[in-house]
Amino acid sequence: MERLKRTVSAILPLEQDWQQKAQQRLDSLTKPRDSLGRLEEIARRMVAIRENTHPSTSKKVIFTLAGDHGVAEERVSAYPQEVTAQMVYNFLSGGAAINVLARHVGAKVIVSDLGVAVDLKPHPLLKIKKVDYGTKNLATGPAMSRQQAIQAVEAGIKLFEEEYQNNGIDLVGVGDMGIANTTPSSAIVAVLTGQKPEQVTGRGTGIEDELLQHKIAIIQRAIELNQPNPNDPIDVLTKVGGFEIGGIAGIVLAAAAHRVPVLIDGFISTAGALIAHQLQPVSKEYMFAAHQSVEPGHRAALEKMKLQPILDLNMRLGEGTGAALAMSIIEASIKILTEMATFQNAGVSEQIS
Amino acid sequence: MERLKRTVSAILPLEQDWQQKAQQRLDSLTKPRDSLGRLEEIARRMVAIRENTHPSTSKKVIFTLAGDHGVAEERVSAYPQEVTAQMVYNFLSGGAAINVLARHVGAKVIVSDLGVAVDLKPHPLLKIKKVDYGTKNLATGPAMSRQQAIQAVEAGIKLFEEEYQNNGIDLVGVGDMGIANTTPSSAIVAVLTGQKPEQVTGRGTGIEDELLQHKIAIIQRAIELNQPNPNDPIDVLTKVGGFEIGGIAGIVLAAAAHRVPVLIDGFISTAGALIAHQLQPVSKEYMFAAHQSVEPGHRAALEKMKLQPILDLNMRLGEGTGAALAMSIIEASIKILTEMATFQNAGVSEQIS
Repeated sequence: MERLKRTVSAILPLEQDWQQKAQQRLDSLTKPRDSLGRLEEIARRMVAIRENTHPSTSKKVIFTLAGDHGVAEERVSAYPQEVTAQMVYNFLSGGAAINVLARHVGAKVIVSDLGVAVDLKPHPLLKIKKVDYGTKNLATGPAMSRQQAIQAVEAGIKLFEEEYQNNGIDLVGVGDMGIANTTPSSAIVAVLTGQKPEQVTGRGTGIEDELLQHKIAIIQRAIELNQPNPNDPIDVLTKVGGFEIGGIAGIVLAAAAHRVPVLIDGFISTAGALIAHQLQPVSKEYMFAAHQSVEPGHRAALEKMKLQPILDLNMRLGEGTGAALAMSIIEASIKILTEMATFQNAGVSEQIS
Repeated sequence: MERLKRTVSAILPLEQDWQQKAQQRLDSLTKPRDSLGRLEEIARRMVAIRENTHPSTSKKVIFTLAGDHGVAEERVSAYPQEVTAQMVYNFLSGGAAINVLARHVGAKVIVSDLGVAVDLKPHPLLKIKKVDYGTKNLATGPAMSRQQAIQAVEAGIKLFEEEYQNNGIDLVGVGDMGIANTTPSSAIVAVLTGQKPEQVTGRGTGIEDELLQHKIAIIQRAIELNQPNPNDPIDVLTKVGGFEIGGIAGIVLAAAAHRVPVLIDGFISTAGALIAHQLQPVSKEYMFAAHQSVEPGHRAALEKMKLQPILDLNMRLGEGTGAALAMSIIEASIKILTEMATFQNAGVSEQIS
């Protein structure tokens, strides 16, 4: 609990001065004012986060956190639970979508086992931070103990800090893998936004209508049975969460504490970010919403934090795939800020009026 | 006229077989079906355009076409006309936004003078295809002669074909530079979509309310005076167009004729693409709309062609900047198609139902 407390209290609001410095630079560049829209908005916030008018984006890291979910026994997913572990091996051998997209944008993928149901074979690229062998079924009781929830968040903080201290991180993305994990994510978002389960529950990996109704009923039952306290995000994580979701919350908090911009991937990552946000609302100033997922609850969670997604490509895969793609946009915004010629240097006339 | 006719008649519809081949491959990869949304849609169309299940994206080219506009004398822009030539020099020295973003995605920028008002100093990276020293003022008569309109489109075709034959092109983007060129673009889009000028006219580089009303009045007058024939796209280009807009139409047609996917940048490029589309509607199958510009007429033009933009970043700069950013997304889609592991190879279980 000490690590979590220390991290939360180290998160400070951004200073407007830095945004103004970035704005001055942007307005001196050879383009009409504000004509690069969100690229300029991203660049301003990057400068304020890093407190540097030439922030580096060279060390890009995506953490893909894996965990299993007891609720999988309720048949809420189109895939069997064994796929979580199989996909971890796929990440480690470089064949998954996140590997392809991370290579495309020059990011490193760090895979961590926060709570996969089986013991995984050791691998140099795999960080074992296992809290337990999967959560318990949230439809029949709390998903985990309060102590485990804190352990999951602190494992995320540790993961971030180990990489940050050993190799440095300029820009971080969070992603997930866990069969059935849209179910706890919908439950978390329902509790923390006040929306009804049917408004924030979707088809996940691709279930049919009948299973969707069943999934909604499971989430309703979980909330009624466990009564998570919306004013206590650790209680929400305990009762209807997941280990990888807690780990994601921890990475988000650690990134904010160390003034590192953090790209939130899709629905599951945003559920984790929402827990971080409820623990420390200022953490939001360090977050970028990578994309708008197809999952209906994603929009509600982003709106709660007033985050506007960078991309909207009808994706619903997770793993950090949206975060990887959006990293390229963030990097582009910094290159605009730092590499473009000014009106003065290029000998271009400025606006008349 | 021969070059234009030959190009238009070489554009053929895509064959569905190739889309199906791409779909089969996508469905064998370690991810839920369709979970990468638009990346998969883009990959399918790329395969069908190239008739190759492993299309290369290594030779990426952005053509930034410059031209001046007689209507600038009506004070419809926030910048003086001399900026067109100044920005061409900025492109050539690598300091403009398009240079920064093209470098970011690994694309080559080819700059061409289609009709800048002054003679430009020769430069190894500048292609001179000047039709005239700027168009005439479309508020007082036709912007150019019909022969010049054909010359502009054919100059675009030549530009594409010279690069295609000498160095090869896997993926092309089109962009523009021309002070006052949102005015002819709005006029073109109004005529070809049937929308009223006030519905498709925006602030361009950033004019205030009063100037916006003036700009709308100029466009209304140009259409009433010149009576462009909406069923004759060359007549529309002649009466209310621009040389760089004609050149963009030519590049789009040439790309389609050579089965090269073409990324349409923002409002001006889309006005050019719309002329290409009206000359040969099948050309649309080779187009990707890079982004949704802030200019209100952009949406109307994209809807007319039923193209859905890839990005939406509140940009309104032109030059090909949106096309450059979207190239990275197109390239990502091809890497997904060609680099991901299959369920079989990775030993991952497939969907239960």
